[in-house]
Amino acid sequence: MPREALHVSRRIAVLGATGLVGRTVLRVLEERRFPLDELRPLASDAGGRTVTAFGREWPVSAVSERSFDGVDIALFASANAISQQWAPVARAAGARVIDNSSAFRYHDDVPLVVPEVNAHALAGDPTLIANPNCSTIAIVVALAPLARAAGLQTLEVATYQAVSGAGSEAAAELERGIRGGLDGPPPPRTDGGPAFAYNVVPQIDRFEDNGYTREEMKIAWETRKILELPDLAVAATAARVPVRIGHCAHVSAVFERPVPPDEARSLWASFPGLKVIDDPAHGRFPTALDADGIDDVLVGRARTSLVNPRGLLFFCASDNLRKGAATNAVQIAQALDELAVRVARRAR
Amino acid sequence: MPREALHVSRRIAVLGATGLVGRTVLRVLEERRFPLDELRPLASDAGGRTVTAFGREWPVSAVSERSFDGVDIALFASANAISQQWAPVARAAGARVIDNSSAFRYHDDVPLVVPEVNAHALAGDPTLIANPNCSTIAIVVALAPLARAAGLQTLEVATYQAVSGAGSEAAAELERGIRGGLDGPPPPRTDGGPAFAYNVVPQIDRFEDNGYTREEMKIAWETRKILELPDLAVAATAARVPVRIGHCAHVSAVFERPVPPDEARSLWASFPGLKVIDDPAHGRFPTALDADGIDDVLVGRARTSLVNPRGLLFFCASDNLRKGAATNAVQIAQALDELAVRVARRAR
Repeated sequence: MPREALHVSRRIAVLGATGLVGRTVLRVLEERRFPLDELRPLASDAGGRTVTAFGREWPVSAVSERSFDGVDIALFASANAISQQWAPVARAAGARVIDNSSAFRYHDDVPLVVPEVNAHALAGDPTLIANPNCSTIAIVVALAPLARAAGLQTLEVATYQAVSGAGSEAAAELERGIRGGLDGPPPPRTDGGPAFAYNVVPQIDRFEDNGYTREEMKIAWETRKILELPDLAVAATAARVPVRIGHCAHVSAVFERPVPPDEARSLWASFPGLKVIDDPAHGRFPTALDADGIDDVLVGRARTSLVNPRGLLFFCASDNLRKGAATNAVQIAQALDELAVRVARRAR
Repeated sequence: MPREALHVSRRIAVLGATGLVGRTVLRVLEERRFPLDELRPLASDAGGRTVTAFGREWPVSAVSERSFDGVDIALFASANAISQQWAPVARAAGARVIDNSSAFRYHDDVPLVVPEVNAHALAGDPTLIANPNCSTIAIVVALAPLARAAGLQTLEVATYQAVSGAGSEAAAELERGIRGGLDGPPPPRTDGGPAFAYNVVPQIDRFEDNGYTREEMKIAWETRKILELPDLAVAATAARVPVRIGHCAHVSAVFERPVPPDEARSLWASFPGLKVIDDPAHGRFPTALDADGIDDVLVGRARTSLVNPRGLLFFCASDNLRKGAATNAVQIAQALDELAVRVARRAR
């Protein structure tokens, strides 16, 4: 029985299609030749815009109560409030929602999925799946094979995050700041915040009562949930750097036993979604620009911690719009699609 | 007996006067109204250049065997090889050398001094004093009061370092990269290294056999020497970010007892050379641009580690050309000058 005889419905909606992540979702769907039956680009403020994908222009519709009728998978590249408003509508219409916002990530009944790490969380046919934080995704892909091999005990992280992670307005603000600061200090930011351009800003998202930012706590909360280590101790610093695309992170992890750098590189090399760039003798290590435009997480600079013999330090870099957001969401859609194909095959 | 009746000789040479640090040394000497009897701007490749200081232009002389005759204090803002060549000449001529290179920092008989922290290391009238690494200086000023109060046990650091820390050619390379990359990827670097512009580069200085860069090991070696904690365990990641001036660092320190953030802020507030910027509720924390142009080390984002209850995380920012180099060197010169005044007073 030829596989192509099976037909699984693939009507896809993309909410937030005009944003940085939404446009990248469309690009990744196209690159991966996702077998679409229908594509519905949606936006909360459509206003007659179009997006380009699969070699043609698509009108973007304003999202409405009827937008998700007949939709199989809805990819949400939207802010929390928009996701909270429309996820129930999409689910009621029968769509499975893959949400890139943080609105549902910490709900016990919502799987938080990085397919290379915990695709098994998709079993049970969930109708709402959360896509993790952009920095967290890269870090957990790099940690997962080490954690499985050696048991992860504690985690410290310092991030170097690209401005596109804050959305298209922030990205435009960076460009204005860079141009306005070519021959002097950068101009103040429109919203009064500290300049992105030529600066390091150790605040991403709002502050929590414990002195950490919400971005820093997301790295803790989400790493625990994805790696299924609910008691893992995690302390993070998240900082914005004047980079367009490409989140980097210094990672300092302590395991139950020492993990020699050679073992780490070997574990990484055989894990999906990772590319090891770790050859100091030839000046090879991950950088933000190396990660820009690719789907793999780059990992390198592996070395034994000088503070704890069971500690390993490494550095990772990933495209925050791709693996950190759109690619991971599309991978979840592909995994759901494969599950649907399997179900259809069993049903024959 | 009026103090001004005392005359202490203050003939100052500045080697590397045309570089980024050398020019900042001249600016800081002027700002601090250092009471000069004579100023000799020197360079290893002078070629008829001039520098501006104290309201006038000064010709820069090519350094020679006679350059240090009669000089009291020689401030070296030069690369290791130049410092190694000329420090013995200057000392033989009777000058006290304050060297900004790393050539002598790890010699047991050479004090490595951050005046706020270990000015006592200047006792004994040393004729060669080393100025520490730019990142290390900021970190040890912030750590010193905490270490004294609570005993420092381990230290992890991740730096966000400005490109000016790599010298004027690197700074020019950053500007070329930013301009060349305004509308696309930045051009390749002249020396073949990864672009500074729009990038994060986790390599500063060459790699050591243990997988750490020399910059990362300098933070370990120098923190131990300055804080007089020879066995302190230190693990660092040093990365370059596309910032002109202003080194930042994520610091995660473990003490013998818990140091509540309020206690840390209080200890910092009463320590010289530090400015606490730590008011999350009002979006106040240290940034690289805030540090640009000032002599204080900015410190904030104090919070208890979520990995160790005796751990404290904080973030610091400092002007790498000022407190990270020139200002610290001039402060050492001022301390030597005060010692000379005291000696002269005792001799009367």
